[in-house]
Amino acid sequence: MIKTVGILGGGQLGRMLSMAAARLGLRTHIFEPLASPPAGDVAHRVFTAPYSDRETLEEFARSVDVITYEFENIPAEALDIIEVIRPVFPGRNALATSQDRIVEKRFLQSIGLAVAPYCEINSEADLIAALATIGVPAILKTRRFGYDGKGQVKITAATQAASAFAALEGAPAVLEGFVDFSREISIIAARNAQGDISCFDPGENTHRGGILHKTAVPASISHALQTDAILLAARILNALDYIGVMGVELFVTQSGLMINEIAPRVHNSGHWTQNACLIDQFEQHIRAVIGWPLGDGQRHSDAEMINLIGNDIEALAQHQNCAIHLYGKTEVKPGRKMGHVNMISPKSA
Amino acid sequence: MIKTVGILGGGQLGRMLSMAAARLGLRTHIFEPLASPPAGDVAHRVFTAPYSDRETLEEFARSVDVITYEFENIPAEALDIIEVIRPVFPGRNALATSQDRIVEKRFLQSIGLAVAPYCEINSEADLIAALATIGVPAILKTRRFGYDGKGQVKITAATQAASAFAALEGAPAVLEGFVDFSREISIIAARNAQGDISCFDPGENTHRGGILHKTAVPASISHALQTDAILLAARILNALDYIGVMGVELFVTQSGLMINEIAPRVHNSGHWTQNACLIDQFEQHIRAVIGWPLGDGQRHSDAEMINLIGNDIEALAQHQNCAIHLYGKTEVKPGRKMGHVNMISPKSA
Repeated sequence: MIKTVGILGGGQLGRMLSMAAARLGLRTHIFEPLASPPAGDVAHRVFTAPYSDRETLEEFARSVDVITYEFENIPAEALDIIEVIRPVFPGRNALATSQDRIVEKRFLQSIGLAVAPYCEINSEADLIAALATIGVPAILKTRRFGYDGKGQVKITAATQAASAFAALEGAPAVLEGFVDFSREISIIAARNAQGDISCFDPGENTHRGGILHKTAVPASISHALQTDAILLAARILNALDYIGVMGVELFVTQSGLMINEIAPRVHNSGHWTQNACLIDQFEQHIRAVIGWPLGDGQRHSDAEMINLIGNDIEALAQHQNCAIHLYGKTEVKPGRKMGHVNMISPKSA
Repeated sequence: MIKTVGILGGGQLGRMLSMAAARLGLRTHIFEPLASPPAGDVAHRVFTAPYSDRETLEEFARSVDVITYEFENIPAEALDIIEVIRPVFPGRNALATSQDRIVEKRFLQSIGLAVAPYCEINSEADLIAALATIGVPAILKTRRFGYDGKGQVKITAATQAASAFAALEGAPAVLEGFVDFSREISIIAARNAQGDISCFDPGENTHRGGILHKTAVPASISHALQTDAILLAARILNALDYIGVMGVELFVTQSGLMINEIAPRVHNSGHWTQNACLIDQFEQHIRAVIGWPLGDGQRHSDAEMINLIGNDIEALAQHQNCAIHLYGKTEVKPGRKMGHVNMISPKSA
């Protein structure tokens, strides 16, 4: 019987995973290179070491019953060390797929799903050729280690090829064509070892400065599209024999849904589930990872989640009608997510 | 600005208070005489010492910004030590009132509220006289330190006076007359320093073996009685200049509501708020204690909470349609609360 869950990464997602595990009576151990991680305040134990520290990684792995993670950019070498000691969920296959934008797009295409036009970019010449094919505007992204708009350059004229390529400092990249979409939605889906799948209702996302600002549920899309989103997410999870929660970001286009990207973890656009569902995405993830049945993810209320960026928190604390979730981060930095709020209203159709 | 909340007591209530504080970005420090307290797994720091340990109590108090507690039986001497270092909420007045059944009943009567007939018992002669007045059946209870039916003896015949008195081993006691009630309800009320009061909807309680088994919301009582319960709770909180959450247990009788007892803390019969309200009783308590506005305590769903006693947990984990809250207690004992489940359904009138 599982008593202790190991979590790689001690940020806010690790913190909320840790609290979900605690609700189920479990202890958590956090592995995090940075000192005083937000998750540490609600965990039984914290291991502070770089991902290159074999000894501490091994000690961490031996101290828990199962391992999961809050972010997808875990070095492969660290995984090599821990996965021979304890099971890691979601598995290697899902991680490898989502860690590389090209591998991810090829995988999605291989199971018949639509993605934006893209080209692999390893040189300035590649980029010039790709711009000729894909056209502008387009976005040049590093293949690996990007998040919240980092490692991305928007290209609006073919003449910007040299400077855009230089900006990524030689990292392997992908050029993505702009998608003409009406809305951005995301779907948070869970799958357990028995192959059961449970999806939360799709949310509609609004970004500011490349960072998620708001998720509203239900998304203002047709029931047919909602069903499409659920089926498509389920197809991805099945194809990867996935265990855990995944966030799937989608564009709503005139020809249907197109996948922006997938994240093999709990997702910022799923935070609304904390206050609008009986079982939230964090608990659903923990349930999958520890081999429990998935819980009831039906929403009981409509919801709107807004991220708290920077220092607008004091004012929000005065609002009675929202649930406030703060991450306990001591230092406020520009663009840093400090928390989020969830507002709910009676469930619509 | 408050960053760290100190909690006296590391049981399940302390654990859930700690998680509520974490949601608001706060750290918690737990003071608990017993090793490995359930709250310790989700707290930043744990102080393990008896309540007689002045030095550790002082260190604990200095390490936090404000102090609260999960149980009302805190020794007065311990309070003397910590309250000169940091504020303690709910305040001394509320604690002193609820720590002694006679003081509590006199207080409730003094503000015009109904309680069961009672007599102060300090000797077997007192008990014989009281039984003659109050009649049987009646319950003999210790004035202090009782919970979950402990320190109580039911008396069904006047001839049991000697054995009943002996069973309490000379502790000062109170004889309470039996109340002819149709239902037991409770109301969880919060008040902050600004004097704002917010009450959750009354719940209807069912006990088994002297321990709360189930709370159902809404209680099947008239709207008039619901309003009575709310007004009565508010009167108690105002009279005590109370800061925090209080649980008020009530009997529904033919002549209206009668108060069974009050608890100056979050209460087992308020656990349903975790899954049926935007802000639950634990967060409401923390908000009051740290000087925040109270949150929206309206229920969005009907709810039923069932306590998990002993080892019936494995089976319940298989139910998808309930939210499971386990306390991380390692040892199962007869009658020990190991967790609870909340089931919700669409809100009725």
